[in-house]
Amino acid sequence: MSEYWMEEKHTDGYRVSWKITNILHEEKTPFQELAVVETTEWGKALILDNAVQITEKDEFIYHEMIVHPVMYIHPNPEKVLIIGGGDGGTLREVLKHKRVKKADMVEIDGKVVEASKRFFPEVSCSFDDPRANLFIEDGIKYVKETKEKYDIIIVDSSDPVGPAVELFGIDFYRDAYRILNEDGIIVVQSESPIFFKETFLKVQSYLKQVFPMVYVYWAVCPTYVSGPWTFTMASKKYVPDKFPGDKELVDGLKYYNEGIHTAAFNLPRFIREML
Amino acid sequence: MSEYWMEEKHTDGYRVSWKITNILHEEKTPFQELAVVETTEWGKALILDNAVQITEKDEFIYHEMIVHPVMYIHPNPEKVLIIGGGDGGTLREVLKHKRVKKADMVEIDGKVVEASKRFFPEVSCSFDDPRANLFIEDGIKYVKETKEKYDIIIVDSSDPVGPAVELFGIDFYRDAYRILNEDGIIVVQSESPIFFKETFLKVQSYLKQVFPMVYVYWAVCPTYVSGPWTFTMASKKYVPDKFPGDKELVDGLKYYNEGIHTAAFNLPRFIREML
Repeated sequence: MSEYWMEEKHTDGYRVSWKITNILHEEKTPFQELAVVETTEWGKALILDNAVQITEKDEFIYHEMIVHPVMYIHPNPEKVLIIGGGDGGTLREVLKHKRVKKADMVEIDGKVVEASKRFFPEVSCSFDDPRANLFIEDGIKYVKETKEKYDIIIVDSSDPVGPAVELFGIDFYRDAYRILNEDGIIVVQSESPIFFKETFLKVQSYLKQVFPMVYVYWAVCPTYVSGPWTFTMASKKYVPDKFPGDKELVDGLKYYNEGIHTAAFNLPRFIREML
Repeated sequence: MSEYWMEEKHTDGYRVSWKITNILHEEKTPFQELAVVETTEWGKALILDNAVQITEKDEFIYHEMIVHPVMYIHPNPEKVLIIGGGDGGTLREVLKHKRVKKADMVEIDGKVVEASKRFFPEVSCSFDDPRANLFIEDGIKYVKETKEKYDIIIVDSSDPVGPAVELFGIDFYRDAYRILNEDGIIVVQSESPIFFKETFLKVQSYLKQVFPMVYVYWAVCPTYVSGPWTFTMASKKYVPDKFPGDKELVDGLKYYNEGIHTAAFNLPRFIREML
């Protein structure tokens, strides 16, 4: 029987190959090439511009870790803005917090949302929540123009190529600062410090120019190869501390817990020394 | 110009490809196929039976993390036994601890030691330390027959195929228990809980049958793909605690530090729930 493989190029000299059993969907959106394939090891995978974005089997790690640490560091996050995150996984995690009254999500590419609704029902399950508001538009433009204010902004972007480039820029962070409440927090996925060291450091540098406090934390997302994956939180007031004793864990978690909340901010020495 | 790639099969449906510029060495030892290649992304790599064992660029993570947590949990580790670890990286980390008086190392395949001495001088740099004693023999047999007693045993084995199979067996753990002092600790590399869940759980089960206390911790080793890599420590007396306030970090660390010491024992929920 024939075998079908998809190859993902991470660097010029490092590639990952995924055995696939089906190409479920392919389209060229106005912003990127989108595909959904069935892999033998990781379940269905959503692919943008030849880079795996999520897989059924491990998406929970990235989505839990971009959301819950800051949602527990902020004592009362009621209004949350998600930039990107078209698959809906970040929205799903945000809305697990009952105290959230409003979650606005701004995704530039409506085709990603459509594909996730069709192929990843367990990821895209929260778009119909009455607290969720989906805007299909440019996140850069949204943060520049909106009159809303938020407690938390979550930047769930793809790699800084294609439509996501400006989401790694200082102008975007300045606008984000402006639309955050005076005790607001922004969190961004800040890439692999090994394969994308330059981007990782640029994010740190820009956020430090805009916010008084910046903290890196990390998780390990198996299908984002190269080891530790980083997230960077920039804050106007709150600092990472132990998991708050007066709160309870939301339901349905598979990675994050009280211990991970603190542990994730302990950086391996080679990462700490980059900062 | 031609391109040369090496393919590493992790599972039936997941492979990693490494661009190489040179095949520096190849031999069939009595125990396994050994190769040393020059990769473009990770420096030189040592390969046994087609599985990458160490790369110049990221070997420090695995070696620091299999050694230092237990060396700081035990208050006074003077006699250390390393089973496997032919490249010498674990020995190098053990001997950074000045209180170590004697480090015995039992590697079944002398060709691994030779290849490391020839191609990885920064990994194999400690074989000449007067505290180091290298035995080229079967680790299973050694722990069964030795009259020595140890404070720490470190099982730095390859995957449980080929010569390493019995190092994941309960008989070996029973012998290890016997030759540990009454406050001794054993630590083993216990594989990926994602790609090798069965092995990971078997190690837990066996160690719990032999030792009163068993603790899992983890690190992320970029070239051991699939996410978190686990280590399991089994102890007669000491439990993981904060980094001891009366001790100082050894020199030359790039991953391990006081924060990681505690953080590493905080398991992601999906791993904790396997246990």
